[in-house]
Amino acid sequence: MTRTVDDHAAAVAGLLHPLAARPVEPVPVRLAAGRRNATEVRSPADLPAFRNSQMDGYAVRAQSIADVPVTLPVDATVAAGAVAAPLSAGAAMKVMTGAPIPAGADCVVPVEDTTRQPDGHVRIERTRAAGEYVREQGDDVRAGALLVPAETGLRPRHVAALAAVGLTQIEVYRRVRAVVITTGDELTPAGTPLRPGQVYDSNGVALATYLAADGVEVVTVTHAPDEPERLRGLLDDAATRADLVLTSGGISMGDFEVVKATLQPLGGEFGHVAMQPGGPQGLSVLHGIPVLSFPGNPVSTVVSYLVFARPTLRTLAGLDPVAPRTLPLLGELNSTPGKRQFRRGRIAGHGVEPVAGPGSHLIAAMARADVLIDLPADVTAVAAGSDVRVWAL
Amino acid sequence: MTRTVDDHAAAVAGLLHPLAARPVEPVPVRLAAGRRNATEVRSPADLPAFRNSQMDGYAVRAQSIADVPVTLPVDATVAAGAVAAPLSAGAAMKVMTGAPIPAGADCVVPVEDTTRQPDGHVRIERTRAAGEYVREQGDDVRAGALLVPAETGLRPRHVAALAAVGLTQIEVYRRVRAVVITTGDELTPAGTPLRPGQVYDSNGVALATYLAADGVEVVTVTHAPDEPERLRGLLDDAATRADLVLTSGGISMGDFEVVKATLQPLGGEFGHVAMQPGGPQGLSVLHGIPVLSFPGNPVSTVVSYLVFARPTLRTLAGLDPVAPRTLPLLGELNSTPGKRQFRRGRIAGHGVEPVAGPGSHLIAAMARADVLIDLPADVTAVAAGSDVRVWAL
Repeated sequence: MTRTVDDHAAAVAGLLHPLAARPVEPVPVRLAAGRRNATEVRSPADLPAFRNSQMDGYAVRAQSIADVPVTLPVDATVAAGAVAAPLSAGAAMKVMTGAPIPAGADCVVPVEDTTRQPDGHVRIERTRAAGEYVREQGDDVRAGALLVPAETGLRPRHVAALAAVGLTQIEVYRRVRAVVITTGDELTPAGTPLRPGQVYDSNGVALATYLAADGVEVVTVTHAPDEPERLRGLLDDAATRADLVLTSGGISMGDFEVVKATLQPLGGEFGHVAMQPGGPQGLSVLHGIPVLSFPGNPVSTVVSYLVFARPTLRTLAGLDPVAPRTLPLLGELNSTPGKRQFRRGRIAGHGVEPVAGPGSHLIAAMARADVLIDLPADVTAVAAGSDVRVWAL
Repeated sequence: MTRTVDDHAAAVAGLLHPLAARPVEPVPVRLAAGRRNATEVRSPADLPAFRNSQMDGYAVRAQSIADVPVTLPVDATVAAGAVAAPLSAGAAMKVMTGAPIPAGADCVVPVEDTTRQPDGHVRIERTRAAGEYVREQGDDVRAGALLVPAETGLRPRHVAALAAVGLTQIEVYRRVRAVVITTGDELTPAGTPLRPGQVYDSNGVALATYLAADGVEVVTVTHAPDEPERLRGLLDDAATRADLVLTSGGISMGDFEVVKATLQPLGGEFGHVAMQPGGPQGLSVLHGIPVLSFPGNPVSTVVSYLVFARPTLRTLAGLDPVAPRTLPLLGELNSTPGKRQFRRGRIAGHGVEPVAGPGSHLIAAMARADVLIDLPADVTAVAAGSDVRVWAL
């Protein structure tokens, strides 16, 4: 296969789409932010549950204060959380914010507009219409009304609303569970001294970190040796524990391409996408589980993940999409014709400046970048000041 | 005290500022995303650690392929992770991406530009200059060079770079630890049937959820009864376990303002900020710990948090600031003169439409909003189509 970035992105999205129908599980409302709910939530009750005062003040009948100033006897004080007795005719009742409005009252006079008299009466300085400073039962949400639609990426504001109507748990989709498998016999775990020819394995950590940021549960991060039987065993095992497998390395033009050698005979598609970095790409389905195979150069792995996996995974998790921005380029860039190029850039003022060269091994330099600069396949040179499209890293 | 929003925000920021100097702790690099590092990180080694091939292909001396096509004997194959013997004069050595460049070679010919002959020799179709497709030792980062500056909000790209140079842990600031205390005898925990006059406590859950999203460790969420001695006990306890206390409720004009009654005698400042919702505000320091006291209406609590606490807490955590946007208002709004008003709104197309009224009890409606619409204190009416400033919820 040889594909454009858009075509391959569509193929990946198609492979991941069935994960939208993954199982649901209950979570406590207090832990629901960052999850995606499966079914709509209707309010189990009116909110407010009862007519209550919007202010600290005096509940009265509006007609009792039609001529002001007026002095009224005060029946009692109603705290929030208390139960109010009915208001006596022509009297006032002191109410705190949130306290029930006593039967017989129809408005509240804020305490700032009143003066308590030595004899316990209250002097009221201005009139109020019926309904003023009164919160009616159900005026925020009615019992049975929609509170949170299905398929909502839950945010703290949803959690607050769910808690306010007294809900303690909510059904959300299980997080997508991913296994990450890195390959390449030269890769060495951090913490071990490097022998000649070896490099540290950053791909496993990088993919796991991005996956977690995109709402995915990372089940395991494993390094596979360049032996197809061992890799096959790891893949078989992953398929029993995860919804998705990401691999890095082993899919290019070398003599020891273990991922391609293992998955191509099982029906995996391996080929080239017209992009830099990240040209070699593979897509397989093993035991019904999608396997996305990225090239092993560290920047290629990350860029492949960001371009192909991140958009769908964020949607599945209910997280906000990463939207591109258009900014003027500070500096010049050249690009290989026929390949969409993703260069690293750094926002500086109102523009974006290139960071380091195009090399797919420049993973340390990528720490200084905060965006990918997205150069279309037909672009060969970008002049300083030209608008370019950038994606947050 | 009576203050503008900006003045009170500055006072809160000043109170929280000392938390920037909180203790540091080591975390594994793989868990460092979302933390803020205390000290700069310099690379412990060159990256690449050795001169290596950028492509699968043949390492040669450029002068051996000055006249093409040319056919060269092939010394051996060097896999990534292997150690290369020196290149024989006039020969080629097959190298995989990432494999060491053998001594004596100075460029790599991509495999695509070669043909292996039946006799094992390789035919090379085009010339290459010295250095082509060779990654020089240290050309990503040199040993001792700055990899991640101090006070960086660590992102997956930093984690990838730290892993690539073989680091396994990094010193980061301990998360800010917060205790949330809600007050109001009418508040009832979710899961309990409401008695007359009671409401569910959404403020604790809402504040805890926002705090977690802003990188704060929520130590406990407690409800305090309207008894100053009990609240004082909870505050004393919080000061031993947290860096920050947030309270809701008990600071307004009522007769039972437990937070104000407890903290004002200890030097806490309680007064009014010229805003809606969220007018009553309190700031105290107890046992050296800042205590931010927000009003108890659910929308007031959340808006107070977003306006006063979120900006500093996100900075302390190393998270991106929430930046305002300017959008045309779809609909009209009125605002109380002299008070900065934060209305709830929803992004719709290229504009923002108001959601529900100004009432500070409308917490269920806030689930439908995704921004706060920020109306300056001197604004009394906003016409449809006017630009307004909005902040993400």
